[in-house]
Amino acid sequence: MGSPMRRVSQEDTWSGQVHPDIASERHVQSFDVERLTNILDRGAQNTARRRKVESIIHSDPEFSCKDNYFMTHNERYEAAVKKAFHTQMLTQSLGWSEEELVYVYRALSGDTVLGMHTGFLKALRSLGSEEQIAKWEPLCKTCRIIATYAQTELGHGTYLQGLETEATYDATTQEFVIHSPTITATKWWPGNLGRSATHALVLAQLTCSGARRGMHAFIVPIRSLQDHTSLPGITVGDIGPKMNFDELDNGFLRLDHVRVPRENMLNRFAQVLSDGTYIKRGTEQSNYLFMVVTRVEILLGEILPPLQKACVIAMRYSVIRRQSRLRPSDPEAKILDYQTQQHKLFPQLAMSYAFHFLAISILEFFQRSYNAILDRDFSLLPELHALSSGTKAMMADFCIQGAETCRRACGGHGYSKLSGLPSLVTRVSAASSYEGENTVLYLQVARFLVKSYLQAHMSPGSTSQRFLPSSVAYLTAPDLSRCPAQRAADFLCPELYTTAWAHVATRLIKDSVYHLQTRTQSGQDQHEAWNQTTVTHLQAAKAHCYYTSVKSFSEALQKLENEPAIQQVLKRLCHLHALHGILVNSGDFLHDGFLSGVQVDMARTAYLDLLLLIRKDAILLTDAFDFTDQCLNSALGCYDGNVYERLFQWAQKSPTNTQGNPAYEKYIRPLLQSWRSKL
Amino acid sequence: MGSPMRRVSQEDTWSGQVHPDIASERHVQSFDVERLTNILDRGAQNTARRRKVESIIHSDPEFSCKDNYFMTHNERYEAAVKKAFHTQMLTQSLGWSEEELVYVYRALSGDTVLGMHTGFLKALRSLGSEEQIAKWEPLCKTCRIIATYAQTELGHGTYLQGLETEATYDATTQEFVIHSPTITATKWWPGNLGRSATHALVLAQLTCSGARRGMHAFIVPIRSLQDHTSLPGITVGDIGPKMNFDELDNGFLRLDHVRVPRENMLNRFAQVLSDGTYIKRGTEQSNYLFMVVTRVEILLGEILPPLQKACVIAMRYSVIRRQSRLRPSDPEAKILDYQTQQHKLFPQLAMSYAFHFLAISILEFFQRSYNAILDRDFSLLPELHALSSGTKAMMADFCIQGAETCRRACGGHGYSKLSGLPSLVTRVSAASSYEGENTVLYLQVARFLVKSYLQAHMSPGSTSQRFLPSSVAYLTAPDLSRCPAQRAADFLCPELYTTAWAHVATRLIKDSVYHLQTRTQSGQDQHEAWNQTTVTHLQAAKAHCYYTSVKSFSEALQKLENEPAIQQVLKRLCHLHALHGILVNSGDFLHDGFLSGVQVDMARTAYLDLLLLIRKDAILLTDAFDFTDQCLNSALGCYDGNVYERLFQWAQKSPTNTQGNPAYEKYIRPLLQSWRSKL
Repeated sequence: MGSPMRRVSQEDTWSGQVHPDIASERHVQSFDVERLTNILDRGAQNTARRRKVESIIHSDPEFSCKDNYFMTHNERYEAAVKKAFHTQMLTQSLGWSEEELVYVYRALSGDTVLGMHTGFLKALRSLGSEEQIAKWEPLCKTCRIIATYAQTELGHGTYLQGLETEATYDATTQEFVIHSPTITATKWWPGNLGRSATHALVLAQLTCSGARRGMHAFIVPIRSLQDHTSLPGITVGDIGPKMNFDELDNGFLRLDHVRVPRENMLNRFAQVLSDGTYIKRGTEQSNYLFMVVTRVEILLGEILPPLQKACVIAMRYSVIRRQSRLRPSDPEAKILDYQTQQHKLFPQLAMSYAFHFLAISILEFFQRSYNAILDRDFSLLPELHALSSGTKAMMADFCIQGAETCRRACGGHGYSKLSGLPSLVTRVSAASSYEGENTVLYLQVARFLVKSYLQAHMSPGSTSQRFLPSSVAYLTAPDLSRCPAQRAADFLCPELYTTAWAHVATRLIKDSVYHLQTRTQSGQDQHEAWNQTTVTHLQAAKAHCYYTSVKSFSEALQKLENEPAIQQVLKRLCHLHALHGILVNSGDFLHDGFLSGVQVDMARTAYLDLLLLIRKDAILLTDAFDFTDQCLNSALGCYDGNVYERLFQWAQKSPTNTQGNPAYEKYIRPLLQSWRSKL
Repeated sequence: MGSPMRRVSQEDTWSGQVHPDIASERHVQSFDVERLTNILDRGAQNTARRRKVESIIHSDPEFSCKDNYFMTHNERYEAAVKKAFHTQMLTQSLGWSEEELVYVYRALSGDTVLGMHTGFLKALRSLGSEEQIAKWEPLCKTCRIIATYAQTELGHGTYLQGLETEATYDATTQEFVIHSPTITATKWWPGNLGRSATHALVLAQLTCSGARRGMHAFIVPIRSLQDHTSLPGITVGDIGPKMNFDELDNGFLRLDHVRVPRENMLNRFAQVLSDGTYIKRGTEQSNYLFMVVTRVEILLGEILPPLQKACVIAMRYSVIRRQSRLRPSDPEAKILDYQTQQHKLFPQLAMSYAFHFLAISILEFFQRSYNAILDRDFSLLPELHALSSGTKAMMADFCIQGAETCRRACGGHGYSKLSGLPSLVTRVSAASSYEGENTVLYLQVARFLVKSYLQAHMSPGSTSQRFLPSSVAYLTAPDLSRCPAQRAADFLCPELYTTAWAHVATRLIKDSVYHLQTRTQSGQDQHEAWNQTTVTHLQAAKAHCYYTSVKSFSEALQKLENEPAIQQVLKRLCHLHALHGILVNSGDFLHDGFLSGVQVDMARTAYLDLLLLIRKDAILLTDAFDFTDQCLNSALGCYDGNVYERLFQWAQKSPTNTQGNPAYEKYIRPLLQSWRSKL
């Protein structure tokens, strides 16, 4: 293993011996765990850089998170601000790059407060002119201001055209008047807004020269740089308790005719001249660019890690926990030796790897196309939007569900915050709505699919068919009507199951186009027809996204020819990911006879056999994620496996144990004596 | 509507006007909502009794829960003890019966602390002799002691034979010596144990006259009745923070050779004589009786209400929230008018009703058989155990998933604690492991099903076949090999879909028996064969449970002949429940050709058409659950629909807004100035 020294124990008093049940799991290594970690890090040098950052963070008591589960909302916020402050100090003294700050965020498990400050910077770079970037970026990077991005409103979320905040240009003073006309126009949710930010990038409906021009972004000072009080016309505060993210001051903001100078409108894609003339340089979509940037970055930065960590914790606990006997004469068995436990956890492990490689492929596509878009070449934006939207929605769905599956797989202990699992679940649960509500995103993918399908099939051989975006090129591939598998082993073949997924996705897309056209051709209004077929579209979009994940996983494995041991162990996970999806959705594969019932049974046999094969590498495959004990912050998931001792020691530090029982004198004693007084 | 006056608003300052978007939903009533409430309450007189209790609770500021979302762990516990104390005072002064205390628990949403005190009482009644009940029940009912039930251990849960706590009989003193031999033997989880209880009913492995006799229950004093300090040999405390249930002091308990008198062993089913002679009067199963009692009671008391409340909240919010336009010329649409939103919420609503009627039928079966079991007639126990285990597991699974679906259907606001939804989700999430871990319970059902199947098919026409328990009688019913449906409307038929579910359950049970037998016949060890087929057994058990829910729902509707309007509207929900299950599991129905792909499409058409029909009654169907605003404790789900105003007002009361920003002087100001110092 890499450097076990870094895995400092949760409890300072802990002995450091490794539990024999977990040591035995690491005894025989069928592949090089360190090398797999390097692959996940995209290079050994990145692993080294990441560990260097982690060792700095984890050896500094200012960054400790071990009391998190015992803290109040206010305490969590204050601790996070403290961490942000220290991060800023270290960034200045050590010269951390933006890449290294990503490792800082990972080391802190996101338990810091200035995420949206960075978000502001990225929005600025996407939407601001070079002059605006030159002016605001240094102020932001050196924390002379603290900024946030304010888009969502109390009554309006994903449907941006519905935003109510107004920005009206006043040519006499060359200012924009920013105003919240109703209670539902109150900005709601922006991180850092509640208590920290001094400036907000406010998204508002622009009116100039009497005409509405749609949504634009305006830099608005909201709090005094002298004493942090809110500026005139500004009502700002924290939106209160949430399911998690206590450390983050999500806030509200109301603006009462607040004036900002003309140059505070970000103007890479649109500009208002001093006389109020409106000049447009981008498409309607250009405002969405920042959202695409964010959606791509959260995949690896925010959405996937909770699932990976949940896998690590549940897997380690499952080889320590012993329950019942497999045979009456045996000792109690490790619960990971039960088929049902493998059936719960291994698909989540496979998903963790599948989504890693998927997110990397999207990131690479994004990096290839971002500069072109900044230069106002929007040709790749629709595909990038569809890919990032669909991947975000799918990953959020499955990571929430997967983390919860891992949590439940740990029985009662999974319900204790000290397991780390509840916080992972409640944190990743936010992913279903932030950065675009999942159903809305899936339906945007569906529109892209319908359009692509029509493009592919309405004019075969034409130019437009040749230029079908590569992510939907399978829509024109020759299709098998029957799966050729004749035995279980035939299913252990990427080509076979990728083709199967392509078949099902194509059929469902075709089906949803058919339903849509049937309705419009029978005279139904096209919008009503769309609404009445959205359940079908949703199903098609989900199948397409799953296909994408299977395809990118198997393509990533092809590149590991030089790592045969790792390729083999990951290939099993790839098989498992594809087959688990087929079995869960077997109805879609049986529907048109592409698979027969007998073939589904073969796929199940192949799947169940894979569980047994993956079993022996399970702990190593989770070790390879290389999360330190501090990152996991879990008594169940500790690297040395001394689960019960940690739970017992940690629980006793609970304020409920250390602060006595103030309710005793007030209520319990009178209760115990109440009857006596009646006698 | 019944008595809208009871629905006191969350905010004292609120005007009380009903939002027009929700008023319009209640304008036309196709059925009598009050009458449906009476049916759910099992009689109008029960509705009246319940409301009387609720009006007392909700008009008493001592029982207020409106600050819950802002409280710390300690504060929640203290508030709950206060409520328990006041409940006890009111019980004495008003003479509340145990039935009325169930209404109290509902009115408090379980936010009270003495649940396990009642649990102790029920265990006492199940396992204690008449003399023991006569001694301890009055002490308990008058709160001269506070008791809990201590079974689960740090290292041992569902597998009771694995419990390590020891009770060794010492004939010389006629005492039992209760002892925790290891750290994993520490009792862990019992409610009230952490800080409140004075006595625990400790489950321990009995040894007398040198022989191990299995698990028995012992009443052990743990805290002084004088000053509440722990007694000699007792180490006791709170297990710390959990995903929810902050109000409850789940605790740990270690016993160091603690002695209790011989008569403290509960001895309805087994007794130790003074010389150490062991006398058994029950079966191995008799110790499980109390667990069956609890499993039955939590269905309606604990597991179902969070799903019902989540439906109420999400449904009300979905007619207030407007987003996007269905047509470009329209105003923004109520999100409940989107097919995808109906597809999320209506199956949960249907499930809420299906599970209500299922739980009632199990409760009635339980009430019919409980006294026989107490009198040591154990013939009905296996079926009661299977029914209650399967129903608990299924309801827990679907209520967790359903509450989370409702939460996500509310977008970002569903992530705010002020919506009420996060607390419902995190509370009901405990249900997957408490009172028997779900997978373990499903597998116990599976064993019952395998046994019943073999009984039904190995000796046709024999006595044992005639005596097949009624819940599995369908295993011998004549089976169709093809579903006769020819058009979508054919699926709107309870007989058709109940038969379809019976077919699939039978096939899956048969399949799992076949897999099991194939393995054992080819020489595999029977335990290994069981383990390697458990994924299949799980699937069979789940299908059986779903069948049971469909069957009990349609049987309950047959009894509503005199209520045609209510019968009609509930019938749609019954159809939806059955069809939603078929569509989600379509692979199981297509597998052997019972349904064709064309028939699945028909079922989907029928399902989508039902969504439109249910739409107009959706709000009324949730109103019928008759939860007061205080029970819901939700800004999104308030009866009058003034969602945004409440969110805005309530958020501002957050301590994060009222306590200033202590982090500013310490960290934010230095951060904003840090760069300047570098210049």
